[in-house]
Amino acid sequence: MTKFALSVAATDGAARTGVLTTAHGDIRTPAFMPVGTAATVKAMTSEAVAETGADILLGNTYHLMLRPGPERIAALGGLHKFMNWEKPILTDSGGFQVMSLSGLCKITDQSVTFRSHLDGAKFELSPQRAVEIQNLLGSDIVMALDECTPFPSTEQEAADSMRRSMDWAARCKAVWEAPTGRGLFGIVQGSVFPDLRRESVEALTTIGFDGYAIGGLAVGEGQEAMFDVTQATAGSLPTDAPRYLMGVGKPDDIVGAVLRGVDMFDCVLPTRSGRNGQAFTRSGTVNLRNARHKDDSSPLDGDCVCLACQNYSRAYLHHLVKAKEILAATLVTWHNLTFYQDMMAGIRGAISGGGLQAWVDGFLARYAGDREPE
Amino acid sequence: MTKFALSVAATDGAARTGVLTTAHGDIRTPAFMPVGTAATVKAMTSEAVAETGADILLGNTYHLMLRPGPERIAALGGLHKFMNWEKPILTDSGGFQVMSLSGLCKITDQSVTFRSHLDGAKFELSPQRAVEIQNLLGSDIVMALDECTPFPSTEQEAADSMRRSMDWAARCKAVWEAPTGRGLFGIVQGSVFPDLRRESVEALTTIGFDGYAIGGLAVGEGQEAMFDVTQATAGSLPTDAPRYLMGVGKPDDIVGAVLRGVDMFDCVLPTRSGRNGQAFTRSGTVNLRNARHKDDSSPLDGDCVCLACQNYSRAYLHHLVKAKEILAATLVTWHNLTFYQDMMAGIRGAISGGGLQAWVDGFLARYAGDREPE
Repeated sequence: MTKFALSVAATDGAARTGVLTTAHGDIRTPAFMPVGTAATVKAMTSEAVAETGADILLGNTYHLMLRPGPERIAALGGLHKFMNWEKPILTDSGGFQVMSLSGLCKITDQSVTFRSHLDGAKFELSPQRAVEIQNLLGSDIVMALDECTPFPSTEQEAADSMRRSMDWAARCKAVWEAPTGRGLFGIVQGSVFPDLRRESVEALTTIGFDGYAIGGLAVGEGQEAMFDVTQATAGSLPTDAPRYLMGVGKPDDIVGAVLRGVDMFDCVLPTRSGRNGQAFTRSGTVNLRNARHKDDSSPLDGDCVCLACQNYSRAYLHHLVKAKEILAATLVTWHNLTFYQDMMAGIRGAISGGGLQAWVDGFLARYAGDREPE
Repeated sequence: MTKFALSVAATDGAARTGVLTTAHGDIRTPAFMPVGTAATVKAMTSEAVAETGADILLGNTYHLMLRPGPERIAALGGLHKFMNWEKPILTDSGGFQVMSLSGLCKITDQSVTFRSHLDGAKFELSPQRAVEIQNLLGSDIVMALDECTPFPSTEQEAADSMRRSMDWAARCKAVWEAPTGRGLFGIVQGSVFPDLRRESVEALTTIGFDGYAIGGLAVGEGQEAMFDVTQATAGSLPTDAPRYLMGVGKPDDIVGAVLRGVDMFDCVLPTRSGRNGQAFTRSGTVNLRNARHKDDSSPLDGDCVCLACQNYSRAYLHHLVKAKEILAATLVTWHNLTFYQDMMAGIRGAISGGGLQAWVDGFLARYAGDREPE
C-alpha cells in the first residue's frame, strides 16, 4: 500500500504545488475539499462530485457520530463504500461542531460531553474516541480532537484553550496506530496571538504529525488577521508535511492563503451558496434570483465546462431558483464546486510555471469586477 | 422531417407495441412519460432522466404559462432547449391544473379565466390559446384543451362537461397547422358513463386527431371502473393512432391498461414517491424511512441497473431519507423512474413475444408479494 506522503513538485515564494499520496489515491495540492457533512455533498451524487474534479472530500465526524453512527458505517464497509466515494476522505474531529451545534454539557481535560442537536441524546467525545470514530469511518486523513477557541478571546483564555488542545493532540497521537497510507493531522490553535500560535506549532511538531492544520480562523477575525496568522504559522511548520487551513473560504481568501504556504482547504461556501442560488463566476458572484437573468440565454460562466454551464442558460437557472426546484440546488452547487476546482487547477499551474503572483493578480482583478451580493 | 405516425410492430390481444415517430425522435410504445411539471423532472437533471430510459417526458402547460411564460421559453429557443431535453415532449393542455390548482374565476364556452396560484394574477385560457402556448413551447404532442369533469358527477353534468370539451377540441383542431413531426391529441371525456364515452369518441374521431387520450380517470372511480372505461374506449378508437391514458398510474394500473389497448401513460407517482422515500421494487413498494433498512447493505432492488441500485445500499438511502438530504430525492426518483421504464420494456418485450398475459401474471404475483405502504 501507498505511503502517506507529500511530494512537493514546485514552489513559488511560500506557495507550493505537489501531490499528497494516500491509501485511496493522490491529492493534487493546493487542494480544495468539498464538504460532505452527513455522508453526502448536499444536492450532489458522489459521481457528480468526482466530475467537478475534486480529489478529496471532507466528512463531519460530529454528524456521522450522531447519525448513522460510526460502528454502523464500519459494519457497512466504511464511509468510502457507504457514500460510494473511492477517492480520499478527510474527517474533522467533531470538536468544532460539538461546540457550535450541540447542547454542550461539560468539557474536561479528558473529554467533552454534549447532547445531540437531533434528539438530545447524550454523547461523550474524548481524543481517543475521536480517533477511534475516524478509524471506524476509514478516513484517509484523521484530525486530532481540538477545542474550538471562541473569538474574540483574551490571551489567557486562548492560551488555556490552546494548551488543552495540545494535550488532546498528544492523546490522539498516543492511540494512533499509523495505518499505511493514512495520516493523522494536528491542529494549530492560539487565536490571533503570535506567541500562542508559535507555542502551539512547537507542541505539535514535538509530538509529530503527518500534517498540520491551522484552526480557529475564519471566525470573525477578518481577512488581514487571518492572513497574518496563516503566514506566520505556515512559515514555521515543517516543509515536508501538508498544511491545511480549516474552514477557508472565499476565493480571495484561498488564493491569499496559498501565497502564504497553505496546501489544503475546505469550506461550505460553494455548496451552501449553491443551494441559495448564489453562483461563483470568473467575474464575481452572481445571484441567480436577480430578475436580470430572466431572459439571458448565456451560460452562468462562459469559460466553465461544468454540466450547468454546458447545458443550461442563466434564464433556466433563474427559473429553477425562483420555482424552488431541487435541480437549482444541484446545478448551482455543481457549477460552484467546478469553479473552485478550476481555481485550484489554475493555482497549481501557476505555481508550476513560477508565476503565481501574476496569476493571482489577474484572477482577483477579474473576479472583483462584477460582484452581486446575495 | 419525420412524419408523426404510430407504427404497430406486434399485437397481443388488445395490447400492441410499436414506435411513435416524432420530430424529436422515436417513442417506443407502450411508453411511460415522466412528469416534468415546471421544465424539470423534480430532483433530476435531464441527463439523468435520459439515463432512466425515458423516450419522452411531459410538461405542464399551466405551470409553464404562469412561470416562466411561453413567449419567454419560445424566445429562448423552446422547451427542449430550455431544459436540455432533446427527445420528444408532450404537453398537457393546462385544463386539469386550471381547475384543480388555480383560483377559478369563470368558465364559458369560449374560455376559462382563472387566477395564478403563485401570485393571484389573472389569466385566460381558450382552446386557441392552449394550442398557441404549446406551439410556443415546441411540444411534439399537443393536447386539446378540455374541461376536467369532477368525480362523481351526474350523467347530465358529465354530458354537459364532455360536450363543452368536444367543442373546445374542434376549436383546437381548427387552429392546428399540423407542423411536420408533431401531433395534436383529442381527449375523450364522459366520466364513467359508457354512452357519453361513446359519444365523445365519435365526436373526436369525426374531427380527426393524430392521437387520442382517455381523460377524466384516476380521479377516485376505482381500478375496476377505470379498467372498464379504458377497455371500452380504447376498443372503439382508431387502431392507427396512439392511445394515451392520462394520469395513470400505479404499476398494476399500467399493466392492466396495456392489456386493454393503451399505448402511453404519465403519472407523478414515481417522482412524487421518490421525494418521499417511497420506492418501487420488483417485489413491491418499499418505504425507506422504515428502520428495518438501517443496517441493510443490499441494494434497493437487486435486479435494477440504476445508479442508486448499482452504487448505494438500502442503509445509505435510509440514512439520506432520515437526514432529509436532497440526494435522497434524487436517488429514489432515479430508481423509481428506472423501475417504471424497465416495466415498460418488459411489457414491450412480452407483447412482441406474444406472451403478455403470462408476463403480467408473473409481474403481479411478484410485485404484490411484499408491499410496504408509505
